[in-house]
Amino acid sequence: MGLMNRREFNQSLLCSLAAAALPRAQAQSSLRINEQRIVEHLTALSQFGKNPQGGVSRVAYSEADRQARDYAMGLMRSAGLEVSIDAAANLVGRRAGSDATMKPLVMGSHIDSVPEGGNYDGDVGSMSAIEVAQTLNERKIVTRHPLEVIIFANEEGGTIGSHAIGGEFNEKYFGFVSNSGKTIREGIKFIGGDPDKLASVRRKRGDIQAYLELHIEQGGILENEKINIGVVEGIVGITHWDVKIEGFANHAGTTPMNQRRDAMLAAAKFIDAVNRVVTNIPGRQVGTVGKLQAWPGAYNVIPGKVVLGLELRDLDAAKVRIMYQKIRDEAAAIGKSTGTTFEFIETDSSVPAPTDERIRKLIDETAKGLGLTTKFMPSGAGHDAQELAPIAPIGMIFIPSVGGISHSPKEFSRPEDIANGANVLLLTLLKLDTSRL
Amino acid sequence: MGLMNRREFNQSLLCSLAAAALPRAQAQSSLRINEQRIVEHLTALSQFGKNPQGGVSRVAYSEADRQARDYAMGLMRSAGLEVSIDAAANLVGRRAGSDATMKPLVMGSHIDSVPEGGNYDGDVGSMSAIEVAQTLNERKIVTRHPLEVIIFANEEGGTIGSHAIGGEFNEKYFGFVSNSGKTIREGIKFIGGDPDKLASVRRKRGDIQAYLELHIEQGGILENEKINIGVVEGIVGITHWDVKIEGFANHAGTTPMNQRRDAMLAAAKFIDAVNRVVTNIPGRQVGTVGKLQAWPGAYNVIPGKVVLGLELRDLDAAKVRIMYQKIRDEAAAIGKSTGTTFEFIETDSSVPAPTDERIRKLIDETAKGLGLTTKFMPSGAGHDAQELAPIAPIGMIFIPSVGGISHSPKEFSRPEDIANGANVLLLTLLKLDTSRL
Repeated sequence: MGLMNRREFNQSLLCSLAAAALPRAQAQSSLRINEQRIVEHLTALSQFGKNPQGGVSRVAYSEADRQARDYAMGLMRSAGLEVSIDAAANLVGRRAGSDATMKPLVMGSHIDSVPEGGNYDGDVGSMSAIEVAQTLNERKIVTRHPLEVIIFANEEGGTIGSHAIGGEFNEKYFGFVSNSGKTIREGIKFIGGDPDKLASVRRKRGDIQAYLELHIEQGGILENEKINIGVVEGIVGITHWDVKIEGFANHAGTTPMNQRRDAMLAAAKFIDAVNRVVTNIPGRQVGTVGKLQAWPGAYNVIPGKVVLGLELRDLDAAKVRIMYQKIRDEAAAIGKSTGTTFEFIETDSSVPAPTDERIRKLIDETAKGLGLTTKFMPSGAGHDAQELAPIAPIGMIFIPSVGGISHSPKEFSRPEDIANGANVLLLTLLKLDTSRL
Repeated sequence: MGLMNRREFNQSLLCSLAAAALPRAQAQSSLRINEQRIVEHLTALSQFGKNPQGGVSRVAYSEADRQARDYAMGLMRSAGLEVSIDAAANLVGRRAGSDATMKPLVMGSHIDSVPEGGNYDGDVGSMSAIEVAQTLNERKIVTRHPLEVIIFANEEGGTIGSHAIGGEFNEKYFGFVSNSGKTIREGIKFIGGDPDKLASVRRKRGDIQAYLELHIEQGGILENEKINIGVVEGIVGITHWDVKIEGFANHAGTTPMNQRRDAMLAAAKFIDAVNRVVTNIPGRQVGTVGKLQAWPGAYNVIPGKVVLGLELRDLDAAKVRIMYQKIRDEAAAIGKSTGTTFEFIETDSSVPAPTDERIRKLIDETAKGLGLTTKFMPSGAGHDAQELAPIAPIGMIFIPSVGGISHSPKEFSRPEDIANGANVLLLTLLKLDTSRL
């Protein structure tokens, strides 16, 4: 209560009495975040893990990640948040609400990057969530619900931090080696978490009033159609497989072409087949082979083994299953024709996660109230929000990505678009604070 | 002279007078190498760089390579050779002849391996050359010509040691990173050479009387046709290229399939095209893509860059040029259809190297004299012999590889075949000692 002035207190009281809360909404409709400050924070954040050729390699659990998190914790404290690191190494910033019986409204995103990534994926949502808290703090606005800003740990390596909160963490993931070179277990420890107490961070249905995440689109639809705000309908399901191809390593000079069992040739035919299967079905599904390693890996040895990474995504889980079966059939045929064998190991999988219909509507109304254009759309990318979908109503706000470029040093979103997104986040949060879900 | 007994001296004198030298040849026709000892030496050598799953990774300039070379130097000294390491890090074992005016007869091979290689490629020829010297030493036979046994440095990484002796070493190779992780310059130093004095090891035409190399076939022809000894007609020309494919790295979830510039997909189509080009022309030519790296290399990023290793081999340089041109044309078409660009960087090239016709005949006669069957054949693999071809008459002896397997832990040659090869090497050497070339 110490942070609330009299008029706000009265408004708060009114709001408690009437969920429609029109008087307060009007008073706050002129509230805006500080665009300049978000841009400054994004610029400062971009120094951690900066690459000479542009962008960042701030993979989760790296030294750059650790330093960036220290920086973010400083910003959170300056925004009046009480900061702690949970056992999954998520950074959690809390701010009390006026009603201690209420469950928190949560905003969040991540600041880890892919290898050779950009400065907007995750960063925009994280810096904007902190900015929303700081704006409320400066205006001495106390919400009814407690607020939380969460910077989730290791989003790019499998939404590890958010999964620990919203899902059942399978301990087999502990042994997986992340892009930092550390296992998940080592990585969580390295940035301040406690893998032995991971179960303590899990929340159950009802523990969170609602979750909101602002994010760059990472595709080109909003920019192409000149739309300001994307209202996300849901997050596609994503499955990763390691595909192991075994042939026979032999001398590249003395083994006639018709006596080879070349795992690299089989891999090449497979990658082409994946592309053919995915593009031969109508729809927005995508399929990618993003990494490949061949053994032994020399000019003069026919590769005896290849392991490649396969990813399929779609909003419809049934369609992913159909594509996967077609790909397995293609692999069997390629194995037969090249004298190789294929093995598929699922390493990671998420189911499609729809957003809450009422929150979609609130985001759409809020954006339109600010004079912005909107479009309802799926998210082709995975997000921390999907991990909270099983336990809380979720909402996601997209802003345009210039050129549709993401996971690249050339990733860029305009400051005015970031400010639009952050204002929609701020005002949607305040509407949620006075709505019944 | 100290090592020669009276009878041998008389024979040597006779031989000096009459090149046909029948009396000596008859006396020596019962001479044989010690099969048991070669096998023991091969077994001991196989411990250096041994892999748990079998075979060795004794790549040139590695610690395992350095230790194996120490072991080989010990064997050379025990065989009565005077050992030195030349500036290119070749191990050179010398034995004086009876005629100080004569040029040396040289036998050699290598003991470095490919990553995850076997225990016969190079090792058989190296241990057999030492065994020939030891047999002569035990029997106190002094040849007219001086003898040299050379274990060449870094054969698998571009016949670096033998090239320094027989060719003009281009200093640009110094900066290349070998499979050991060291540059060629660092590697040469690491195993006892002196890169700054490399020119000192070069020999000119006439400096070597003849060069003989025993080697496993590394293919399956001799075994399939049940033939004991391959008389090598020549060594194919080999060219290596790094092929750089540039696309555009982007998010694998948000970039629609028809808006991608996927360097991995382009690489896959290219690898398939290489195989098609090479197999669509009649003949024994081979083409291989043995290694590939994709950047940034994650499940969820469309690769923006791929670098792969291309190798083409044939006895006919013109045919290699034709294949290369067809492959360039295919790459251009793939680049166009996938929105990527291809760049070809030649990293290594050797011209076809025919063996000396008279030495072929001597090897054939010698093998038949031992009751062995023979076949004239090309070598699909590169060998140190090819590097000496510009300055000396060369001869190569092949023995069967079980299953035609090489550059693999499963590489194997039977002890009796190794003994046959070593005996042909010994007796051909002695015939060369008394022949005019």
